Amino acid sequence: MAKQKQLKLGALLHGVGGGTSLWRHPDSDPGASVNFELYKSWVQKAEEGKLDLIFIADGLYINEKSIPHFLNRFEPITILSALAAVSKNIGLVGTLSTSYSEPFTVSRQFGSLDVISGGRAGWNIVTSPLEGSALNYSKKEHPEHDKRYRIATEYLEVARGLWDSWEDDAFVRNKETGVFFDPEKMHELNHVGEFFSVKGPLNIARSKQGQPVIFQAGASEVGKNYASKEADAIFTGAENLEEAIRFAQDVKARAADFGRNPDDVLIFPGIGPIIGSTEEEAERKYQDVASLVTIENALNYLGRFFEHHDFSQYPLDEPFPELGDLGKNSFQSGTDKIKKDAKEKGLTLRQVAIQSATPRGNFIGTAEQVADRIQEWFEAGAADGFMLTASVPHGLEDFVDQVVPILQERGIFRTDYESDTLRGNLGLSVPENRYVKSNAEAVRS
Amino acid sequence: MAKQKQLKLGALLHGVGGGTSLWRHPDSDPGASVNFELYKSWVQKAEEGKLDLIFIADGLYINEKSIPHFLNRFEPITILSALAAVSKNIGLVGTLSTSYSEPFTVSRQFGSLDVISGGRAGWNIVTSPLEGSALNYSKKEHPEHDKRYRIATEYLEVARGLWDSWEDDAFVRNKETGVFFDPEKMHELNHVGEFFSVKGPLNIARSKQGQPVIFQAGASEVGKNYASKEADAIFTGAENLEEAIRFAQDVKARAADFGRNPDDVLIFPGIGPIIGSTEEEAERKYQDVASLVTIENALNYLGRFFEHHDFSQYPLDEPFPELGDLGKNSFQSGTDKIKKDAKEKGLTLRQVAIQSATPRGNFIGTAEQVADRIQEWFEAGAADGFMLTASVPHGLEDFVDQVVPILQERGIFRTDYESDTLRGNLGLSVPENRYVKSNAEAVRS
Repeated sequence: MAKQKQLKLGALLHGVGGGTSLWRHPDSDPGASVNFELYKSWVQKAEEGKLDLIFIADGLYINEKSIPHFLNRFEPITILSALAAVSKNIGLVGTLSTSYSEPFTVSRQFGSLDVISGGRAGWNIVTSPLEGSALNYSKKEHPEHDKRYRIATEYLEVARGLWDSWEDDAFVRNKETGVFFDPEKMHELNHVGEFFSVKGPLNIARSKQGQPVIFQAGASEVGKNYASKEADAIFTGAENLEEAIRFAQDVKARAADFGRNPDDVLIFPGIGPIIGSTEEEAERKYQDVASLVTIENALNYLGRFFEHHDFSQYPLDEPFPELGDLGKNSFQSGTDKIKKDAKEKGLTLRQVAIQSATPRGNFIGTAEQVADRIQEWFEAGAADGFMLTASVPHGLEDFVDQVVPILQERGIFRTDYESDTLRGNLGLSVPENRYVKSNAEAVRS
Repeated sequence: MAKQKQLKLGALLHGVGGGTSLWRHPDSDPGASVNFELYKSWVQKAEEGKLDLIFIADGLYINEKSIPHFLNRFEPITILSALAAVSKNIGLVGTLSTSYSEPFTVSRQFGSLDVISGGRAGWNIVTSPLEGSALNYSKKEHPEHDKRYRIATEYLEVARGLWDSWEDDAFVRNKETGVFFDPEKMHELNHVGEFFSVKGPLNIARSKQGQPVIFQAGASEVGKNYASKEADAIFTGAENLEEAIRFAQDVKARAADFGRNPDDVLIFPGIGPIIGSTEEEAERKYQDVASLVTIENALNYLGRFFEHHDFSQYPLDEPFPELGDLGKNSFQSGTDKIKKDAKEKGLTLRQVAIQSATPRGNFIGTAEQVADRIQEWFEAGAADGFMLTASVPHGLEDFVDQVVPILQERGIFRTDYESDTLRGNLGLSVPENRYVKSNAEAVRS
């Protein structure tokens, strides 16, 4: 009997949470975003549940309206490296922007994390949606949306080239002969492009998974093309099963158009499971969390997607205001969707704000019900895996203790790690070094 | 009785070593530079010895002539963060260049490391001596020496400002009232200078040591002024006691001229102790290591300080060649010294190369003899502490097991940590946040 296709699972470690008010919950640690011991316990819980990866999101600009987690949180490279030292098999994935960094440094930091962790690093490439980022980086202006993706494309080309600086057998380390490395297997990149000139070689060699795994979450047209062309895995939001299937089919078709095997692009919708011992208890947990959000919080939260726009200037119970192009150059796909939904469904500002700040999701119920829903989405082709976001305190613990065993029982999720690398667990192959002899023709042509 | 002044100790963790050939030693792990388990065992050994700190050096450019450790090694931010998770009291100090990075990112990464480690981060500010670095960072040219220090000065001003973005009591986190932070205690920096424009605030607050400890190693005139003005601690090389005393007095006098208490600038000469059960055994250990270095290695090693100059073109046994300004824009003070010494002492190229690649140092002997020498330098005012470099395999273990107990016995080195922060152990005070009310006048004026 052929082995059943296996579900992949990741967990977003996100301090006090992605919303405005979860920190106020009686069971929340309101200092969670800067509590290393807590992050350590989370990664170890996720590893106990045999999850594929944990994920650290990021942003480069805050102001007084930013949500609590964004104000004061760990920087991804540092927290992932620290977590590498206290975990063994789980993947360590973090966001880093190609719009405000240097490919030599970033390739090195992810390369070094990859070696420290024994091949468990992943990089979620973002182009920085927040216009304010430019103000923290001595830049006159935030590059416009499509230019950001042009930069990201060239950037990843450079990073991948640098990661291949050393062939896997370049370091001979022969004490007798005194030969430390084979110069034939050290490669300068000599990249000269529109945005970057990088000579190389990189001063760290590949880990045993070859190169860090590339994640992406672009949802605009340009973003989806970038992701389907370049990414090993794609994070996405999905309001319902149909939308999730549509997204997965769309992206996999684009990947095929780029000549890739669609199975090599893993789709991870983000879901925020809320588990109760009964359906009613789960619903009550959701209501408890939703009730913490005030309308002021909700308006602030909404504003962030629209370049920190002040929504308190509009009447709450009239139709969602006309905003023109506002948001176009930051969270393009997200703000387009909010505007479209509001218009189509005739929503008021209050409705849009509340819905945005306290999304209900599709994964609220008993452990059995949540497992059913996960299996349904997985088998319908809506997802290769899921990114778990913490919607309630102890959401990760509940999931690992209660839902994982059911998924394992049903044979759709591992009972132990297949590998100690992230690629190994995700079922992705180790990319061959571009300079290896058998590849040399392709490189030269 | 007043407590005797206490010696400070740091250990450079440097993989296969700073020279060309230590990796060939029978007791060396030739893959040490990328062996995380080994780094972990080193930091834990250093902590067992109650050392103040471990230090990770860095560089941003390699070529086929670079020494083995530089070719393939951990990047400082990642390895320090990983080591933070497996240590408790020891300081974690790393090099990062202000010439090829962004202050918002670097302040964040060191700030995050500082919080993850509970106040144990230190930053060794360098301006990148290697001209080739520009080629890895899309830059037309390497900024000249004095400009690099102007950049470094403004950069540190920005970093310190960003670190103070949040007053220590800014995060109220009152679940009842819903107040997460006090906006009066969040501060934008709004820096606009010659090289940087940075708005802030930083998205991570201060650790319990306030700000990371600043290290510097500049030895040129400009470098010494920068270090005496800005640094909490200074790394230095010193060939003999007299030179070390002269350096310490010079730098402390400069610090006083800048209005600082000279005791607040700690001087750390680098030393490479080689311990034997007898003097002869120690000498034999040195000779074993020195004999691994070939003349070709030594010429390569020397060339690195002179912008990767090819010294094999000169006759070996004639006077050291005339090099003009070569080296001026990279390792300025180091290359000046080599040229001066060669001329004054009438050295041949071979002599200069061998001496440079296998420095003998002043700390070879029995544990008792090495402790004597350390105490002598310390009490003569040549050093507030020492940076131990690994000159032989297991040099750190030998030092911790054999020399530390003698220093403790003599009452000049701690038997347990005074603090769990780096500032606490170094005896440095926590810098008050510039925006705290009592300081507000000073800030506004």
